[in-house]
Amino acid sequence: MPLTDILVLHGPNLNLLGQREPEIYGSTTLADINQKLVQQANQAGFQLDSFQSNWEGALVDRIQQAYAEHIRFIIINPAAFTHTSVTLRDALLGVAIPFIEVHLSNVHAREAFRHHSYLSDKAQAVICGLGADGYYFALSHVINRLDSAQATV
Amino acid sequence: MPLTDILVLHGPNLNLLGQREPEIYGSTTLADINQKLVQQANQAGFQLDSFQSNWEGALVDRIQQAYAEHIRFIIINPAAFTHTSVTLRDALLGVAIPFIEVHLSNVHAREAFRHHSYLSDKAQAVICGLGADGYYFALSHVINRLDSAQATV
Amino acid sequence: MPLTDILVLHGPNLNLLGQREPEIYGSTTLADINQKLVQQANQAGFQLDSFQSNWEGALVDRIQQAYAEHIRFIIINPAAFTHTSVTLRDALLGVAIPFIEVHLSNVHAREAFRHHSYLSDKAQAVICGLGADGYYFALSHVINRLDSAQATV
Amino acid sequence: MPLTDILVLHGPNLNLLGQREPEIYGSTTLADINQKLVQQANQAGFQLDSFQSNWEGALVDRIQQAYAEHIRFIIINPAAFTHTSVTLRDALLGVAIPFIEVHLSNVHAREAFRHHSYLSDKAQAVICGLGADGYYFALSHVINRLDSAQATV
Amino acid sequence: MPLTDILVLHGPNLNLLGQREPEIYGSTTLADINQKLVQQANQAGFQLDSFQSNWEGALVDRIQQAYAEHIRFIIINPAAFTHTSVTLRDALLGVAIPFIEVHLSNVHAREAFRHHSYLSDKAQAVICGLGADGYYFALSHVINRLDSAQATV
Amino acid sequence: MPLTDILVLHGPNLNLLGQREPEIYGSTTLADINQKLVQQANQAGFQLDSFQSNWEGALVDRIQQAYAEHIRFIIINPAAFTHTSVTLRDALLGVAIPFIEVHLSNVHAREAFRHHSYLSDKAQAVICGLGADGYYFALSHVINRLDSAQATV
Amino acid sequence: MPLTDILVLHGPNLNLLGQREPEIYGSTTLADINQKLVQQANQAGFQLDSFQSNWEGALVDRIQQAYAEHIRFIIINPAAFTHTSVTLRDALLGVAIPFIEVHLSNVHAREAFRHHSYLSDKAQAVICGLGADGYYFALSHVINRLDSAQATV
Amino acid sequence: MPLTDILVLHGPNLNLLGQREPEIYGSTTLADINQKLVQQANQAGFQLDSFQSNWEGALVDRIQQAYAEHIRFIIINPAAFTHTSVTLRDALLGVAIPFIEVHLSNVHAREAFRHHSYLSDKAQAVICGLGADGYYFALSHVINRLDSAQATV
Amino acid sequence: MPLTDILVLHGPNLNLLGQREPEIYGSTTLADINQKLVQQANQAGFQLDSFQSNWEGALVDRIQQAYAEHIRFIIINPAAFTHTSVTLRDALLGVAIPFIEVHLSNVHAREAFRHHSYLSDKAQAVICGLGADGYYFALSHVINRLDSAQATV
Amino acid sequence: MPLTDILVLHGPNLNLLGQREPEIYGSTTLADINQKLVQQANQAGFQLDSFQSNWEGALVDRIQQAYAEHIRFIIINPAAFTHTSVTLRDALLGVAIPFIEVHLSNVHAREAFRHHSYLSDKAQAVICGLGADGYYFALSHVINRLDSAQATV
Amino acid sequence: MPLTDILVLHGPNLNLLGQREPEIYGSTTLADINQKLVQQANQAGFQLDSFQSNWEGALVDRIQQAYAEHIRFIIINPAAFTHTSVTLRDALLGVAIPFIEVHLSNVHAREAFRHHSYLSDKAQAVICGLGADGYYFALSHVINRLDSAQATV
Amino acid sequence: MPLTDILVLHGPNLNLLGQREPEIYGSTTLADINQKLVQQANQAGFQLDSFQSNWEGALVDRIQQAYAEHIRFIIINPAAFTHTSVTLRDALLGVAIPFIEVHLSNVHAREAFRHHSYLSDKAQAVICGLGADGYYFALSHVINRLDSAQATV
Repeated sequence: MPLTDILVLHGPNLNLLGQREPEIYGSTTLADINQKLVQQANQAGFQLDSFQSNWEGALVDRIQQAYAEHIRFIIINPAAFTHTSVTLRDALLGVAIPFIEVHLSNVHAREAFRHHSYLSDKAQAVICGLGADGYYFALSHVINRLDSAQATV
Repeated sequence: MPLTDILVLHGPNLNLLGQREPEIYGSTTLADINQKLVQQANQAGFQLDSFQSNWEGALVDRIQQAYAEHIRFIIINPAAFTHTSVTLRDALLGVAIPFIEVHLSNVHAREAFRHHSYLSDKAQAVICGLGADGYYFALSHVINRLDSAQATV
Repeated sequence: MPLTDILVLHGPNLNLLGQREPEIYGSTTLADINQKLVQQANQAGFQLDSFQSNWEGALVDRIQQAYAEHIRFIIINPAAFTHTSVTLRDALLGVAIPFIEVHLSNVHAREAFRHHSYLSDKAQAVICGLGADGYYFALSHVINRLDSAQATV
Repeated sequence: MPLTDILVLHGPNLNLLGQREPEIYGSTTLADINQKLVQQANQAGFQLDSFQSNWEGALVDRIQQAYAEHIRFIIINPAAFTHTSVTLRDALLGVAIPFIEVHLSNVHAREAFRHHSYLSDKAQAVICGLGADGYYFALSHVINRLDSAQATV
Repeated sequence: MPLTDILVLHGPNLNLLGQREPEIYGSTTLADINQKLVQQANQAGFQLDSFQSNWEGALVDRIQQAYAEHIRFIIINPAAFTHTSVTLRDALLGVAIPFIEVHLSNVHAREAFRHHSYLSDKAQAVICGLGADGYYFALSHVINRLDSAQATV
Repeated sequence: MPLTDILVLHGPNLNLLGQREPEIYGSTTLADINQKLVQQANQAGFQLDSFQSNWEGALVDRIQQAYAEHIRFIIINPAAFTHTSVTLRDALLGVAIPFIEVHLSNVHAREAFRHHSYLSDKAQAVICGLGADGYYFALSHVINRLDSAQATV
Repeated sequence: MPLTDILVLHGPNLNLLGQREPEIYGSTTLADINQKLVQQANQAGFQLDSFQSNWEGALVDRIQQAYAEHIRFIIINPAAFTHTSVTLRDALLGVAIPFIEVHLSNVHAREAFRHHSYLSDKAQAVICGLGADGYYFALSHVINRLDSAQATV
Repeated sequence: MPLTDILVLHGPNLNLLGQREPEIYGSTTLADINQKLVQQANQAGFQLDSFQSNWEGALVDRIQQAYAEHIRFIIINPAAFTHTSVTLRDALLGVAIPFIEVHLSNVHAREAFRHHSYLSDKAQAVICGLGADGYYFALSHVINRLDSAQATV
Repeated sequence: MPLTDILVLHGPNLNLLGQREPEIYGSTTLADINQKLVQQANQAGFQLDSFQSNWEGALVDRIQQAYAEHIRFIIINPAAFTHTSVTLRDALLGVAIPFIEVHLSNVHAREAFRHHSYLSDKAQAVICGLGADGYYFALSHVINRLDSAQATV
Repeated sequence: MPLTDILVLHGPNLNLLGQREPEIYGSTTLADINQKLVQQANQAGFQLDSFQSNWEGALVDRIQQAYAEHIRFIIINPAAFTHTSVTLRDALLGVAIPFIEVHLSNVHAREAFRHHSYLSDKAQAVICGLGADGYYFALSHVINRLDSAQATV
Repeated sequence: MPLTDILVLHGPNLNLLGQREPEIYGSTTLADINQKLVQQANQAGFQLDSFQSNWEGALVDRIQQAYAEHIRFIIINPAAFTHTSVTLRDALLGVAIPFIEVHLSNVHAREAFRHHSYLSDKAQAVICGLGADGYYFALSHVINRLDSAQATV
Repeated sequence: MPLTDILVLHGPNLNLLGQREPEIYGSTTLADINQKLVQQANQAGFQLDSFQSNWEGALVDRIQQAYAEHIRFIIINPAAFTHTSVTLRDALLGVAIPFIEVHLSNVHAREAFRHHSYLSDKAQAVICGLGADGYYFALSHVINRLDSAQATV
């Protein structure tokens, strides 16, 4: 079985996506997004895995496991944990896997406490407000970087 | 089986209630409180369920499940999560079920960091310092509102 | 004439209750609330008096007089004075009568300056956002406490 | 002559891009980026114009002119003006053209004063840390939105 | 040619006045306002000049030139520069011409960063929220002061 | 007797106006100002009443009474209460009568605690530093607005 | 009748002094203190008047009246108004009578909000923590100053 | 089976110890540390248990269980939870078992948010920057205290 | 030789008193003040010693020595050390001798950093702005307390 | 033509120097200062150019051009831009030319907002309060450094 | 005479240890502690010297002298200077001798101003709340490090 | 013996200058600097004395003595005392001798607590980051001022 190259992590409550009032918020579910990401990665010759949890501990365990799996890049939408979790920060720093932070909505246009992130200063990049496009663009960028890294090798 | 109308959530460490030095703190346990709440709800013709956890993720999962169960009102004592959990806030906003926030003690008379709540500005109401009465009064108010809502229908 | 046991204080502008646009805000007046509180107290065998003023000095005088009258509990909705009156705080501390703080609306969902109260850390309990129910529940709790105190005697 | 649909604005000092120590910072110039953006827009059937200035007033004038030109979307890298220019904010709000904010570097990993933006809470989205990709991804997203808007018409 | 007595300065984006959605915001343009101000000044026997720019440097140059022209009073609506420009403050202090600060809207009812002005503590007076009336009333006051000053001479 | 249209309120210590060291501060008294305001209103066909008090409660009572009298606009110089009185704010919001806030001196050039007002964000407009002219200009603006409102009817 | 030279003002709740639990707090009442102050003043050949109120407005009126009575010095214990009343500050500044601020207890050893006073920076002196001695020492100092002022005349 | 006297708790990400780049960070694992702690405790005649988790809830459950087990002292390295977990604080206070807080690195030399701990003010002692020695010294101190406590009995 | 009962401490730069521009600042020197304090103490039957230093360490040593000498009360003007010396605070708390804090000038009317004292919350009382009278009044109060304490014995 | 070695930049309003009330502020103009600086540089064998503007953009353009001209040192008096211009900071960092920051007056003795500079932490040195001497001393230091650098070559 | 390897510094007021109310605070004096530290060092083959002063300058001089004496490690309990002395920080950085910071009590459980240290971010480690054990454990750790350093040589 | 005109004060740890690792930090000692300053002063016909101490009290004593010696200007490098010593500030204000503040390094590029000085707002000028040149330039400026002052006499 091929090794996973890229891990996509979804934080708490993102599993609700597309399930409440689809006529208003759209009917794209997290499963839809994950499926598109896998396709996009595969077409570029990479393996991608995704994981969602409402449990901080589960996300931390998954990040630690990523180190054992030699995963090369993480795309993470930390959702509410963005603003409260030093543990996620430490896990990401602990495994030293580069990551991009993605938010569906524009967090700067929401409550003041959402303007601070425990991850942003350690992220390679931050994207917010582009909806699901944020994930796809992050992945495009990761693919470019992994490609050029491979080219060097 | 009748649908649950009202969910009562108890945050971390509330399971210790009535177990340490009962001669000082009283011997009312969380089980006692839950039993009284069920009776009070049943007498008014409503179904009530309760849930305690020391795990933030478990509480979030329970809130999400409440949406699937068509629960109409939540009474929550978030305990220590009051001051740290954006995730609980997002879960409650995500399912859009109205809720009342209850604290056994008067949080304003305790440490400064307990004066801020991530839930209060989105709650219907906040009660603190009334001990277990806080739960019962919150339930009375919920029953009144559900009754009048039903009457309208 | 029986002694007053419980005093209910209403702060500034609460006399406007139910007088402006009743089709929107409801037509319950402060007189209605006071009448219900007197009934509830009488049924439990207690005497209750109420007092409203837009004048901080008048409320302070009333609190000092409560001490002379041997009033045993105060329920107070300090309204705007909540956020500005050290004098009310000192009066309540000076007479050493236990009190519960009640707000009709959820002050945490309003302007930032309404999130701080000069009374809350000295109150027995704080209730906000339950409308007039806040008064009735506070009174229930007071009655329970006075009853059990009497039982002890 | 076809109307311009999309305007790309580059703030102060971005004209230095690719000119100092290309062996370290790369040799991609602002002209290169602009050329790629024009191609990407043209391929999708849109007209794109770009403009750089070290002068706040010139950028504001250009934004006001965009209103007269019926430009439909702005992509802006405000550079240093991000943190100091209420005037740019007012210009963008004044013309009411939706915009995406782009930064080449991860501003959250730099000095504290770069963590606040006068534009982010009014932007549709914010991208930082992806280098020149930030512009291309922003444009992709804009094209999608303009396409679907046109489809509706 | 008669000397100019009074200078009216309009800050950035005020040239947009009356040009966007006149059915909503009214159709009074900056030109209309300037014309009325000139008439009001002329009727009182004074010369008035006005100047608008989106460029901070242009406004500073104009203020310095006012010193050379022996202008006796400035009325300034600094718009966005209110909150960011120490340079305008220094220019006004440097030429030592008394000035009144005018804002069309009530800045206290807008974003928090608009509550601070770098000019107000040095202004003779501040008017906000009166729309174009703010300019006319400021001019009335200036005329009174210049008249009584002349009378003294 | 004709109805009062406009109420002018003067806060604490304004009754001292013109009474101490007239050779320095001028000899215009509050009575002089009130007389001029009545004349200005009458000439425009409106009735104006004025009221001064050093007592917050008296001002609140007067505002509440204004509601009963169908007063259509309030001009208020809250003086020291500007910075401390949530009660005045609540009274003005409670009666929902539009108001303009006037200060004789430029409060921004005085102590830091005078830079914040509990009324400004709810006022229609704020004028400071114009001396008694502030009242007259506020009244001019009110007259214009009442006139055009009447014209509509 | 001789003119009053010195006015002693007591703020809210000070009338409770010596009335609650005298076995603990001592039985010295405000009347006792006032009597001693009158004697001390008379022996030095001065007239002294004192006034207590729980009403801010009443204290302000008394200060204004002091100006009319040509009172030469004020000793004030503003109690809770220390921390909230800009109106008292303005009244004292308005009449320009020098004053000394006295507190019975050491306010610096109490709640944080009692560490700031709206009067101290304008007072001649501040005494706290000396109990009733604070009044007597303040009066001694005032007598010395009035004596030496008279000597100069 | 002998009762456990001392519990050692390791917070999130500490399980990574000694696993990444041992040539740089050393190869001491958490298992090594735990083994040494057990030996040190046994030699002094005490039973010691240790527990690591990336899950806040698991740590809280373990603390609550410690109460049931009559554990007499806790040594805790809360890692990232130091700065975010009121729940751990409440659990430790709830079971009222004395504890020492240990950090491997000098938290004062790291990011600003690591300078505040939700546990330190309730801890018996705090040690940071001594690496694994911190655990051993904490245990030495605990042994001394338990010994002298036993001696007293 | 009789034991010293009371120690008066003068902080840095107070030795300059009365030496610079006596025609402006008065010619009372620190020696004059000390002499008067000794007389006042002797007349009441107490021994008083005084000490000035510009050296924090010397003042701390003197306080520690006071403990050995069984000194019963300290009057201290800490001057600049008021705002910077935790060491003086610790010395005073260490010897547990009650003290009164005196300042010649009104520190509240000076620079903001002079509004905070490291001693005030532990002082029996604080006097400022009375000039040298502050020392004499403090001593009067101390004498009264020592007298009544002796009476009890 | 010889290359320019050193660039002296003067920020906004410095062109007013020596032009207003020379009998008070002195009659030294910016031209005088520039002339002296050129002489001082020439005598040391260096070419010096100077530039003043009230326009931030013009200063930034000049700095960028300095890079093209291989200028080796910048002396800048940013005046009001000191406190507001991230753009100047970025320009100076962008061209990586070392610079010294000069202020004519002592900015620390002026308004609080002048105590922060966006340039100081990146400057080689900062001089303020020496008047025009500040420029000459800065130049002396620059000459020394360029001389010793040349010596090394 | 053998060279000193380790210096132990005790800050102000620590000489009071064990001298006041030994029945409460214990009778261990600073001399006792120093004696134990010398023994512990000697047994490990190292020379240790200790020094206490209430004078900041004396401690700084001692640190500078340590550099001349080739002392290899410092253990310092800065006491009150922890929170106020940049000079001690500079001395320790100036001589570049590694140091461990020790506090007898848990400073985090005391006044807020004791939560910040000017030394901690430069210390190798920080220990607080272990009483005299803090010194002994710090010395153990130092001995281990010096031993392994010697082994390397 | 000629009177001293100028005093140069060096704060704590500056005696270490040039003594540690001269191959890195240079070998210029404080003695070298003092010698050059004396020469520079003598050549201009002035007497200069210098003094260094690690003891705040010694520096204060020296400043007070400067007043007795009729010293006309002080140049001070307060080093660490810059940020903590109100006592030095008071001494300098007490003797009213003008002074210039000098720092060898650029304090703005160092730790945040070094950005505030207790002396700067009272200094004639501040120089930082020029190394020893800072002293020489300050002296040049002082010489110019003393010369022109003498010329006036």
